[in-house]
Amino acid sequence: MTQTPKKLWGGRFAEATDGLVELFNASVGFDQRLFEQDIRGSLAHAAMLGKTGILQPLEVKQIQDGLNAILEDIRAGNFEWKLSLEDVHMNIESALRDRIGPVAGKLHTARSRNDQVAVDFRLFVKDAALELASLCRGLRAVMVSEAEKYLGGGQGAGVETTLELRVDAEAVPPAPLILPGYTHLQVAQPILLSHWFLAYAEMLERDESRFLDAAKRMDESPLGSSALAGTPWPIDRDMTARELGFARPTRNSLDGVGSRDFALEFLAACSINMAHLSRLSEEMVLYSSFEFGFVTLPDSHTTGSSIMPQKKNPDVSELARGKAGRVFGDLMALLTVVKGTPLAYNKDLQEDKEPVFDAFDTVSIVLRLYAEMLPKAVWHAETCEKAAARGFSTATDLADHLALGGLPFREAHEVVGKLVGYCVQYGKQLWELSSEELKAAHPSLNSSVAEKLSVQNSVRSRMSFGGTAPERVREALGAAKSRL
Amino acid sequence: MTQTPKKLWGGRFAEATDGLVELFNASVGFDQRLFEQDIRGSLAHAAMLGKTGILQPLEVKQIQDGLNAILEDIRAGNFEWKLSLEDVHMNIESALRDRIGPVAGKLHTARSRNDQVAVDFRLFVKDAALELASLCRGLRAVMVSEAEKYLGGGQGAGVETTLELRVDAEAVPPAPLILPGYTHLQVAQPILLSHWFLAYAEMLERDESRFLDAAKRMDESPLGSSALAGTPWPIDRDMTARELGFARPTRNSLDGVGSRDFALEFLAACSINMAHLSRLSEEMVLYSSFEFGFVTLPDSHTTGSSIMPQKKNPDVSELARGKAGRVFGDLMALLTVVKGTPLAYNKDLQEDKEPVFDAFDTVSIVLRLYAEMLPKAVWHAETCEKAAARGFSTATDLADHLALGGLPFREAHEVVGKLVGYCVQYGKQLWELSSEELKAAHPSLNSSVAEKLSVQNSVRSRMSFGGTAPERVREALGAAKSRL
Amino acid sequence: MTQTPKKLWGGRFAEATDGLVELFNASVGFDQRLFEQDIRGSLAHAAMLGKTGILQPLEVKQIQDGLNAILEDIRAGNFEWKLSLEDVHMNIESALRDRIGPVAGKLHTARSRNDQVAVDFRLFVKDAALELASLCRGLRAVMVSEAEKYLGGGQGAGVETTLELRVDAEAVPPAPLILPGYTHLQVAQPILLSHWFLAYAEMLERDESRFLDAAKRMDESPLGSSALAGTPWPIDRDMTARELGFARPTRNSLDGVGSRDFALEFLAACSINMAHLSRLSEEMVLYSSFEFGFVTLPDSHTTGSSIMPQKKNPDVSELARGKAGRVFGDLMALLTVVKGTPLAYNKDLQEDKEPVFDAFDTVSIVLRLYAEMLPKAVWHAETCEKAAARGFSTATDLADHLALGGLPFREAHEVVGKLVGYCVQYGKQLWELSSEELKAAHPSLNSSVAEKLSVQNSVRSRMSFGGTAPERVREALGAAKSRL
Amino acid sequence: MTQTPKKLWGGRFAEATDGLVELFNASVGFDQRLFEQDIRGSLAHAAMLGKTGILQPLEVKQIQDGLNAILEDIRAGNFEWKLSLEDVHMNIESALRDRIGPVAGKLHTARSRNDQVAVDFRLFVKDAALELASLCRGLRAVMVSEAEKYLGGGQGAGVETTLELRVDAEAVPPAPLILPGYTHLQVAQPILLSHWFLAYAEMLERDESRFLDAAKRMDESPLGSSALAGTPWPIDRDMTARELGFARPTRNSLDGVGSRDFALEFLAACSINMAHLSRLSEEMVLYSSFEFGFVTLPDSHTTGSSIMPQKKNPDVSELARGKAGRVFGDLMALLTVVKGTPLAYNKDLQEDKEPVFDAFDTVSIVLRLYAEMLPKAVWHAETCEKAAARGFSTATDLADHLALGGLPFREAHEVVGKLVGYCVQYGKQLWELSSEELKAAHPSLNSSVAEKLSVQNSVRSRMSFGGTAPERVREALGAAKSRL
Repeated sequence: MTQTPKKLWGGRFAEATDGLVELFNASVGFDQRLFEQDIRGSLAHAAMLGKTGILQPLEVKQIQDGLNAILEDIRAGNFEWKLSLEDVHMNIESALRDRIGPVAGKLHTARSRNDQVAVDFRLFVKDAALELASLCRGLRAVMVSEAEKYLGGGQGAGVETTLELRVDAEAVPPAPLILPGYTHLQVAQPILLSHWFLAYAEMLERDESRFLDAAKRMDESPLGSSALAGTPWPIDRDMTARELGFARPTRNSLDGVGSRDFALEFLAACSINMAHLSRLSEEMVLYSSFEFGFVTLPDSHTTGSSIMPQKKNPDVSELARGKAGRVFGDLMALLTVVKGTPLAYNKDLQEDKEPVFDAFDTVSIVLRLYAEMLPKAVWHAETCEKAAARGFSTATDLADHLALGGLPFREAHEVVGKLVGYCVQYGKQLWELSSEELKAAHPSLNSSVAEKLSVQNSVRSRMSFGGTAPERVREALGAAKSRL
Repeated sequence: MTQTPKKLWGGRFAEATDGLVELFNASVGFDQRLFEQDIRGSLAHAAMLGKTGILQPLEVKQIQDGLNAILEDIRAGNFEWKLSLEDVHMNIESALRDRIGPVAGKLHTARSRNDQVAVDFRLFVKDAALELASLCRGLRAVMVSEAEKYLGGGQGAGVETTLELRVDAEAVPPAPLILPGYTHLQVAQPILLSHWFLAYAEMLERDESRFLDAAKRMDESPLGSSALAGTPWPIDRDMTARELGFARPTRNSLDGVGSRDFALEFLAACSINMAHLSRLSEEMVLYSSFEFGFVTLPDSHTTGSSIMPQKKNPDVSELARGKAGRVFGDLMALLTVVKGTPLAYNKDLQEDKEPVFDAFDTVSIVLRLYAEMLPKAVWHAETCEKAAARGFSTATDLADHLALGGLPFREAHEVVGKLVGYCVQYGKQLWELSSEELKAAHPSLNSSVAEKLSVQNSVRSRMSFGGTAPERVREALGAAKSRL
Repeated sequence: MTQTPKKLWGGRFAEATDGLVELFNASVGFDQRLFEQDIRGSLAHAAMLGKTGILQPLEVKQIQDGLNAILEDIRAGNFEWKLSLEDVHMNIESALRDRIGPVAGKLHTARSRNDQVAVDFRLFVKDAALELASLCRGLRAVMVSEAEKYLGGGQGAGVETTLELRVDAEAVPPAPLILPGYTHLQVAQPILLSHWFLAYAEMLERDESRFLDAAKRMDESPLGSSALAGTPWPIDRDMTARELGFARPTRNSLDGVGSRDFALEFLAACSINMAHLSRLSEEMVLYSSFEFGFVTLPDSHTTGSSIMPQKKNPDVSELARGKAGRVFGDLMALLTVVKGTPLAYNKDLQEDKEPVFDAFDTVSIVLRLYAEMLPKAVWHAETCEKAAARGFSTATDLADHLALGGLPFREAHEVVGKLVGYCVQYGKQLWELSSEELKAAHPSLNSSVAEKLSVQNSVRSRMSFGGTAPERVREALGAAKSRL
Repeated sequence: MTQTPKKLWGGRFAEATDGLVELFNASVGFDQRLFEQDIRGSLAHAAMLGKTGILQPLEVKQIQDGLNAILEDIRAGNFEWKLSLEDVHMNIESALRDRIGPVAGKLHTARSRNDQVAVDFRLFVKDAALELASLCRGLRAVMVSEAEKYLGGGQGAGVETTLELRVDAEAVPPAPLILPGYTHLQVAQPILLSHWFLAYAEMLERDESRFLDAAKRMDESPLGSSALAGTPWPIDRDMTARELGFARPTRNSLDGVGSRDFALEFLAACSINMAHLSRLSEEMVLYSSFEFGFVTLPDSHTTGSSIMPQKKNPDVSELARGKAGRVFGDLMALLTVVKGTPLAYNKDLQEDKEPVFDAFDTVSIVLRLYAEMLPKAVWHAETCEKAAARGFSTATDLADHLALGGLPFREAHEVVGKLVGYCVQYGKQLWELSSEELKAAHPSLNSSVAEKLSVQNSVRSRMSFGGTAPERVREALGAAKSRL
């Protein structure tokens, strides 16, 4: 960037701006990212100024041609951003003047930098929210596809996703893959891997809807709010709102230029989404460890170590987990900023963009990477199933069996608890207990219950709505597909 | 609280729980607040167990009678919460056993503490979200009512609000009250106080809709998810969902017991709402200072000082501003918790309740207090209007006038900027400049522009949609009333 | 609590305080916790007022007797806190007046609630910082003791700790217990469990020093700053500082009443400490899982499940991990509050106490619980060592061996990387490779390197300062003991 | 940046890294900032490898010459950073190999990327902490200089500061400038502007000491910790620590590579410092508003508006206030990251650098800008003093007068409170009351007290240590100068 001495607002000021101040105040280093939005906004504003007769048709044409030429220059990398011109708006306006002369100055009629930046930023955030909603949906499709793949029976190929995932036909297992379900990271009950995938699909569906709600709530154009009070010019705010793809103009000019809750809501939705992706990451890190050994991540999405050549590090998952903190920090930063400012616009609000850009970039790459990586991950059915059988994971089934026989549930629970204690002491599994040992615990028990205690039976039995029985999961899968 | 040695899950454990551990683990100190929800959930569960034939009608009746009696005891303050029983669920279940004997143990059939706590907490958070939405609406009604009061012309009495506010008829001013509009805390342009009130009404309307969206998204019953995998019992989850007022049961048992994004979304909505209320508070603190002097807060909502008897401290606003940080902290706390936990349930999630309780209590009292305080605050029209005229606040109007004459806006801006510099130097106001002085700045100017430069004219001129012209504000007010 | 109509600052106010306002403003619900500090402060202030002749000796005696009687009442639970009296200060002052009459009113001479609350709170935070430093030291002693226990050779009994830990003599293993060292949760290199304990001891030592630094920096008495400007009374601030155990009085009255960085620094030290304890917790949760199986936590510090009787949940670790978020939230809350307030005192600052109390309670219980739990945890040497051998954890040793022979390290790394790939493909361990296989990878290799590749040899070889070789760890242990 | 296919850790991997993964994993975009530290670390490591005989002198020379040449290239902007080489370390190592051939591979002997990044980052953070301490000291010097300037009597020229500030001799006022002291943003008591400056000097002195404490605590070299367990090579860690300017090597290799509390402590110190600077900013924004009018900020540090040419916006202060949130977000981000990771190194920790860089840049520019701006700000004595007399700001003095006469302080407070109420009602000032009016309030009063009630007298009377009496402030100033 180079520096020019001329400030557009400098009429009154005697002393030149201090160099460090210029650096501190300038936002062009990051807000140049809004150049598309800024030019879209200006094009719409110019068209409206023409339509309402505020500008002459020829003036509008000059301005629009100039703006379009600048747009192409920027896209082509032929634009020199100047720090001394502070921000994206002034850089573009200055370039317009260089290109078309004084008529450029008419573009800012009935507009202020306050409503200009507000509309640019809203255009960006709305698009960002829609984009992340779409990426959530894409990852959701992957989750559904993976759920189908591991449900057994070869239906895997049927899922169509927006990301055009290819499901490797030979990878489709004949029977549902059984995974341990954990609570407190202790094996609790066997579940289907497909059920686990669908749990994340549920979270992502809510995340998606949060992004969509946010996009809808911010779907208003602040353009025409001017500095803060509106303008005396006979502008047509409905027209600019429509041209820019907004549902309507904002209803109050102070609110239009001064509010940033749309950015906060976006960051909150990002944070919640990242919390989910961090949980997923935590599980992927665990499940790909030697100790768990449930899944092998693809080489393409892991890295090695400079000194330990055997390592296959789940970097994507680790970074995703770490980057949740980053996005939370973005949210915290902007909440703190907004919280401390009176109406309408204060320079503090310039701090609104970087957290949003950072959160958007972070969330979008994490969503994309998981959509890429998960279909390439290989789950190890035998290891998973073996793990699912550990830790007396079907003890609950035994308790349910006793309760079904009429024993109050809490008593059944105590009986089974004592049996487990006995097994731990003698190194046995529940299904290895003899009828005598079982009867000693409770007279209604005998060795015929053993069959109840396999992980397959346990899974099959959990037929309640939303439960992990293959039949239920198959239904849930169908419903999930229909909502894609 | 007293302690009892018996833990309901203690079958296997040889050693007694450590005292400090008990204190650390126990949640009954705060989750007893969920007793209504817990008993509602148990009543619905019992009814369903009866309907599906899992329990006998007599058993159900015993359980329900017992629960209702306990509910009355707790409401009446006749219930001894025991720390040793850890949480609200175990305390109530234990009391039920004391009251009806071993049949109490059947209530927990086909249920786990995991889905029990999940449904209790959702019931609470959903109600909390609806309550805060309602309080936002109430404060919005106050904003609208105040906007009407200060718009002039006596229409103030027409607004009906859910809080049954009395509008003091004699306080209604004859003309719209004009306030300075600020940017950078520098006087920018005159606005109507009514316009300012309606700006906050807009923010509150979005806050309200965020609470409603959150309530809608969480409107699913996790009851029946059991520990994490569903249950083999032939339960009817639709029935319990319906009985508890949920729109439907959750679709995945892992998600049902393990997800807390509903609480995160609630806390995010609270945080954004508090950011708005903190901005309002910042303005109330400023405007009630000696230096601004725009408003006098009611004695009922201010306090004095122990050593400076003349002080009238805007405590409510200051505390509200400070408590925004507290609510942000609540959100950060839970984001951090959720982010670090694999599926399905981990004890970390016990940390979900206190932030939600704290945020709910904080936001609800702040919303209530503002709804009480604002109608009693007295705005000083003369001081406000005088302030609105300061700082060359109508310079933009002059620039608009020049631009209307065909001067490109940026040039008009420079002309006016130089005039203002001249005024500052010679201690004049813009409307005091002679035709000569004006002409020297730009040939098209003469003293006839002075009338353009009064704050009344400035306000009246801002006729764009969403602008501060009384006519527009009146329309906006009507629309705002129709959305109450 | 009951309510009384009389406010001590109420001289000027015509209208009674609104009930909800009273509830909102009152801090006595939480600041009553400062009663000891408040009375200590008042006793010191009264003594100084006597010494300087501002009060008569008899007046001082009356006041001091009254305060001491109140102190005993509160300690004995015979004190009725009144919400209407707002805070701990007014409650005690009002009780003093009830007890000794109007002379009570003289206690507040040359003092304001601003410096009173500032000194009370500093006394608390300083003590809290010292207490947490001491608890860090206690847990550090446990870490050192455990390090010694698992280092082999029976020296375990020699560590004396402030917590009087008994080391069970028969639990002392004959040889150092070897644990896998992880990076990316992938087994990286074998380490000693003792080395792992000492790593946490290092973190805790820094945490301790942070608390001590904080305590030292805040070791100044603000008493005598009065409302904000100092006082005309001839007070002796050195005397009150000395009496209250402070190193000196604060040097600027505005700073004395308005600054809260001491509380922020305390919360930051708590947060960093909790981050460390959360990492420890994360490892304890992992290592006590079935999949890792490295350690069995004591029954006294784990809990069961209502539906899965076999579970032994690491609740303490999970909750500690979760509560890190809570403490971070406390810090964020107060940072946000302080950030937004001009000098000197604003009501926002009333929000300073609850986060500090909450963080102190949280950190202190977690430190205590770990000091209790760790000595009772049983580590499984065989499982740990077996895990440490997995994953080609000694591949680095092989690379080092090659580099020692002159091969540039990066080339050695590639050679070993290829060998590991070969082993993975053919299901072999590095030490199972034949001389032919080894030579094929690099001519300098043969089967004699196998002995280099045992975990024992690997650990023994890491003799660099701070390394995990038993000899080094023994030295580090001695040094760590000397710093207790 | 360009991309090369060769990964240094790629021996084992069959599949090329995914493009998006590469982008996600690569840190070179931000960690290239550590190039000086990285090369310093490598030079010290190479020297040590030579000294201990691990490498041959010639090898060391080749490596060092190569590194120095690369250092110059980077400084001169002649270095092509490659994204495909992931990070600063690999980029430099690869360039070294290009330059000196395979011997470059020997530099990594007895070192891992884990200890390499740990030492680079510590070097940076330690320097950053020392730099910010120095900038705090510089701003403190400005505060002291300004305090002297406005204390009256012409001593202003005597302050020497590290920033070589010129104090404009003619700006020195003859008498101390009196400012209103605020609580609750209500005028409370008159203070000296010099006293106000010294309050911030106190805060900055503590901030400075926090940075110094942090720098001291992190003054340990982790180099030689290797991957996590130390190394078998006979390295000399004392030597590398010394060469790099560290006080000593870290004592535990796991802790050395895995801990990031030094970065957290740095961020916490930054956050507290920013909270103070935000408070200062809040006051500057207020005091430079039309309504307060206490100070005029220099043109060089303010900006205008695009539509309102008369505005002089306190952008620096507003941005500084806003950027506090940003730094808090940085702290929150890293706390969240560290909190969730087991030992030793996890990729999550790659997220440690950007928050630190961002916080350092932010805090350092804000400290610099205030050091530049404050001496150029012009305070308006008359306006300040007039404001200080408002709001019955000397009512406390009257209460003190009554208490001096023997009235219990609380009663004196009530008497004055009633008088103030009377004054408010009749539009009088306290010093305008007649003897009759005064006697009616309390028999001991008469019009001779009026002289007590001037702001000059009020200020002069506050002679307690740390108080605002000119005599005390002069002493405090002397002491503050001696601590620079």
